[in-house]
Amino acid sequence: MEENESKSLLPNINLPDDLRRLPLEELPQVCEELRQYLIQQLADNPGHFASSLGVVELTVALHYVFNTPEDRIVWDVGHQAYAHKILTGRREAFKTNRKFGGLRPFPSPEESEYDTCTCGHASNSISIALGMAVAAHRTGSERQVVAVIGDGSMSGGLAFEGLNNVSSTDNDLLVILNDNNMSIDSSVGGFKEYLHQLHTSKAYNDLRHALAKQCYRWGILNDERAKQLLRFNNSVKSLLNRQHNMFEGMNIRYFGPNNGHDVIGLVHTLRQIKDMKGPKMLHIHTVKGKGYAPAEKDPALFHAPGRFCPETGERIDEEDPSLPPHYQTVFGETLLELARGNERIVAVTPAMPSGCGINIVQAELPDRCFDVGIAEGHAVTFSAGMAKDGLLPFCNIYSSFAQRAYDNIIHDLAISRLHVVLCLDRAGLVGEDGPTHHGAFDLAALRPIPGLTIASPMDERELRNLMYTAQLPETEGVFVIRYPRGTGTSSSWRTPMQALPIGKGRQLKDGKDVCLLSLGPLGNDAAQAIREAESQAGVSVAHFDMRFLRPIDEGILHTVGKRFRQVITLEDGVRTGGLGSAVIEFMAEHGYNPKVTRLGLPDSFVPHGSLEELHRLCHIDRASIKEAILKATSHD
Amino acid sequence: MEENESKSLLPNINLPDDLRRLPLEELPQVCEELRQYLIQQLADNPGHFASSLGVVELTVALHYVFNTPEDRIVWDVGHQAYAHKILTGRREAFKTNRKFGGLRPFPSPEESEYDTCTCGHASNSISIALGMAVAAHRTGSERQVVAVIGDGSMSGGLAFEGLNNVSSTDNDLLVILNDNNMSIDSSVGGFKEYLHQLHTSKAYNDLRHALAKQCYRWGILNDERAKQLLRFNNSVKSLLNRQHNMFEGMNIRYFGPNNGHDVIGLVHTLRQIKDMKGPKMLHIHTVKGKGYAPAEKDPALFHAPGRFCPETGERIDEEDPSLPPHYQTVFGETLLELARGNERIVAVTPAMPSGCGINIVQAELPDRCFDVGIAEGHAVTFSAGMAKDGLLPFCNIYSSFAQRAYDNIIHDLAISRLHVVLCLDRAGLVGEDGPTHHGAFDLAALRPIPGLTIASPMDERELRNLMYTAQLPETEGVFVIRYPRGTGTSSSWRTPMQALPIGKGRQLKDGKDVCLLSLGPLGNDAAQAIREAESQAGVSVAHFDMRFLRPIDEGILHTVGKRFRQVITLEDGVRTGGLGSAVIEFMAEHGYNPKVTRLGLPDSFVPHGSLEELHRLCHIDRASIKEAILKATSHD
Repeated sequence: MEENESKSLLPNINLPDDLRRLPLEELPQVCEELRQYLIQQLADNPGHFASSLGVVELTVALHYVFNTPEDRIVWDVGHQAYAHKILTGRREAFKTNRKFGGLRPFPSPEESEYDTCTCGHASNSISIALGMAVAAHRTGSERQVVAVIGDGSMSGGLAFEGLNNVSSTDNDLLVILNDNNMSIDSSVGGFKEYLHQLHTSKAYNDLRHALAKQCYRWGILNDERAKQLLRFNNSVKSLLNRQHNMFEGMNIRYFGPNNGHDVIGLVHTLRQIKDMKGPKMLHIHTVKGKGYAPAEKDPALFHAPGRFCPETGERIDEEDPSLPPHYQTVFGETLLELARGNERIVAVTPAMPSGCGINIVQAELPDRCFDVGIAEGHAVTFSAGMAKDGLLPFCNIYSSFAQRAYDNIIHDLAISRLHVVLCLDRAGLVGEDGPTHHGAFDLAALRPIPGLTIASPMDERELRNLMYTAQLPETEGVFVIRYPRGTGTSSSWRTPMQALPIGKGRQLKDGKDVCLLSLGPLGNDAAQAIREAESQAGVSVAHFDMRFLRPIDEGILHTVGKRFRQVITLEDGVRTGGLGSAVIEFMAEHGYNPKVTRLGLPDSFVPHGSLEELHRLCHIDRASIKEAILKATSHD
Repeated sequence: MEENESKSLLPNINLPDDLRRLPLEELPQVCEELRQYLIQQLADNPGHFASSLGVVELTVALHYVFNTPEDRIVWDVGHQAYAHKILTGRREAFKTNRKFGGLRPFPSPEESEYDTCTCGHASNSISIALGMAVAAHRTGSERQVVAVIGDGSMSGGLAFEGLNNVSSTDNDLLVILNDNNMSIDSSVGGFKEYLHQLHTSKAYNDLRHALAKQCYRWGILNDERAKQLLRFNNSVKSLLNRQHNMFEGMNIRYFGPNNGHDVIGLVHTLRQIKDMKGPKMLHIHTVKGKGYAPAEKDPALFHAPGRFCPETGERIDEEDPSLPPHYQTVFGETLLELARGNERIVAVTPAMPSGCGINIVQAELPDRCFDVGIAEGHAVTFSAGMAKDGLLPFCNIYSSFAQRAYDNIIHDLAISRLHVVLCLDRAGLVGEDGPTHHGAFDLAALRPIPGLTIASPMDERELRNLMYTAQLPETEGVFVIRYPRGTGTSSSWRTPMQALPIGKGRQLKDGKDVCLLSLGPLGNDAAQAIREAESQAGVSVAHFDMRFLRPIDEGILHTVGKRFRQVITLEDGVRTGGLGSAVIEFMAEHGYNPKVTRLGLPDSFVPHGSLEELHRLCHIDRASIKEAILKATSHD
């Protein structure tokens, strides 16, 4: 390849068609340039990193062999799809990746015809791709469909449901199992063990591969003959190994495991199997962070490292050390404190130990922590079983992923009134990860469930007090605590914990013109907006931190209903069905007639961007709150 | 056993302790009596039937070997747990099974300490039991935990998530895979194929079993030695077969497949493996409906056959033939009509083809129907893929089971605005199947999701019109139609279909004192209540059928807000967050101040019973609606 190194290839690849015009032997160089481009770009404009590095060769091979966008590539989760974005018309736009108004954080059909479905939540790729493959079959299309799924995503039940269904219908789906023994943190579970054992058949595959290569060289074999041979080979293997391989046992032809970093080998293999009839799986091994030593060394850290020095891999810590810590740190530290004093406490996370702070507990009390893999439903139901027999699980799930566990919360927790603390991290807007990751629906979706306690702390101290209250022996049933991503309000948060009365809010400030009722940390912005409005316009605003959405503080609401003609509600969740609705329902039920202005997320999917930009967009930033106050007071 | 036949055993078994005092050789008689008791009881008082017959021997063996209730048996779904109920203190009470105030339809910890968790939704048993097993391990308890799961339930992703997690933690869980090649209808999917292949190892197991039996007879083997031998045997088998068996590959010791109708054999096997350390699976084969010829012949029909003649198996059709057909029949017939005329239409069901009426389409257009197994999440996401590439899926899920697909609806359908018709069958109260099966939360949970259309027909003709409207090419996005279980209102429902304006309701009747806004079939009860109230008290009531919860008919709401001081909303879903909330929000937003009375389901889990009894309990029966009208008019 030496002779090519002077000539850059990537700048001339604007679309996969350009890639497909290159000779096969230039693909390693494309991969190398792509990898360097990714490193340079992501060092400066942070995003998901190690996953994309791991699939550079696969991405190039797929677009080289398949006729995209007519053929479909379905990326599971989509945090590995940056190389895909760069090869499909977005090389320059990639500089705007994850920025407000810029490229979306995950593949999105609204952004590009090369993006085949909404990505963001794990494990959906096989189901979606199967639907596309069945549609192709039914409509007589020649379209090929490929799902690319990581071994981490395979721990999600949805992936298994899809896989289970693959052989039931007529389709030619190709599933590529990208096995890097990782999800975001390490991959867990029996299935991982199972995959590991498939290595042992590798010797056989290697031999076969070497033989085939030699036959190509001698001219005995060409692509068409190779296909026939592979088919025959596969049938024999099937007969012999029927039970040896779970996938073959499920009537899915299995190939691999192959080296996922040999782009030319991948092209050969994909060409050989692409036209085979019936569902098939290609199992490849890749290294998360491949080609960038610091990321290979610590792929979890480099999953989304923030800015870093491309030469050294040193991460550029942009956080002001004087800033308060993240809620996640407070959560982890507090849970550790509580777990030390309460033997019944255990911690459960679906594959996010470092994301949610449970790693802090893990370090000291590893046998009290359960990382169950990407399996939100199981996380909740497993917690139900533990709670039934005397343990007290703190089950921590990102709010938007907890949508996966909606039935488990109702059926396995709420009906049985089991004492489980359900911690919804990343509640409210999450910023750059966008619409799939915003925790927008939790308040509205959980409020109708009988018996739930639903709380949201205004700051770290409140979070600690809620966690403390939730684990008291006299506390009963499902206790939901939802709180956002990011930094809190104070560096001196490690205050003594105290029990809070369940279903009681607190008055932060009295006033007479308008009453603001807030839930969660937006209350801090409200407090400032109130100060500004009061000093600017001489109005007088009362402010209550409701703390609990459910049971809601009826004492406060009676007071407010009686005393105020203007009420503003403020929440970091959809306006439809959450705090604002609860307040309006209460007022209507009790014959109070204040004008209630509901501030919260709109009736549309909120895009990605910085929190500041998004809060402004949704009119829940400080200026908008102030404006709402001024508008309310001008009504009177 | 001849000598025992004169003496009945079952009447003296009040608790498992009584069973455990019997000699082993009497167990077949217990099984026979239990089976006869089940047949007699269920012939007269309908319920789930064939599933319980299939596990009579397993149930007896489990309670004989394990120290229940201290040891835990977790029944998946729980429709197979009648023999369990009868053996655990509820033999006489079983006469009240499924009746209002009587025994619950599924196991429930509120009913008995022998019932270990809330049952009803499939596939949760492994996760819950694993939680219990981990709790036992952590608390130093000697408690044994057994999960019993059918092969049908194994198609649910939650079961796989549980299984995947089993080997990751210290526990001694026993999973019994009850393989009858059925869910409610036939079992589907690759996993079923996989299980089928495990038969081939049966010869080896049979040989081993016969040998062991002989050694017992000769006195060479006793229980303790047998355990050691089995352990050794298993280790050798493991080494040899590591890859042969998916479960062993996942570090779960696998035993079987065994005959699930040999109660003495089951007792021996359970005794041998119960004290083994680490997770293990016993795979047994059973026949759904075992011991009752008509049920063995047609297990799907006898899943829940209604009343039948115990001698002949003839089902006693209690339905008045002059009654209107079920909504399910109307749905199936209408979908067939539409599919004949619209090539793009396909039908998707998670394991309920006959329950929801898709079997009607299947009979004529089998390749347009997809039964994906018990996999609600996959059903929705698979539909997303098909919709993306040109098909128009009618995805039919029971409302309460659709809670399993909440994230899929948001993430895979709504964000991408894919054109899928989501039909929520069994919406509202379902009657005897109780709290796990009531479709109570769909309206409230789906209303906040941007872009959804949510409709509920008042009768069969409206259902047909909504289905027709939903599949028109100009219709966009996710179109939800929710309708109840049971009979409609008219036998002459096969009327020509017509497009309905989306987001528009209809005025059924004008009036001046109070306005009633209803959604769905309860509108028929409302219409009658209105007639009664008007003739009884001389009041004048306007009535609107809202048809759509979302987009809601703002024209109607403006009219109502302007004209009425008393408004009643009526819906067959939780009061919190549904139609009533939407109306109150609208009124508050637009400065109208009518008194709004919300009729709907309460903030508690509604028990089981007849629909009539439950509607009365929830104050949404005709008399309660009339009362609400009279109360509203007396306010004025």
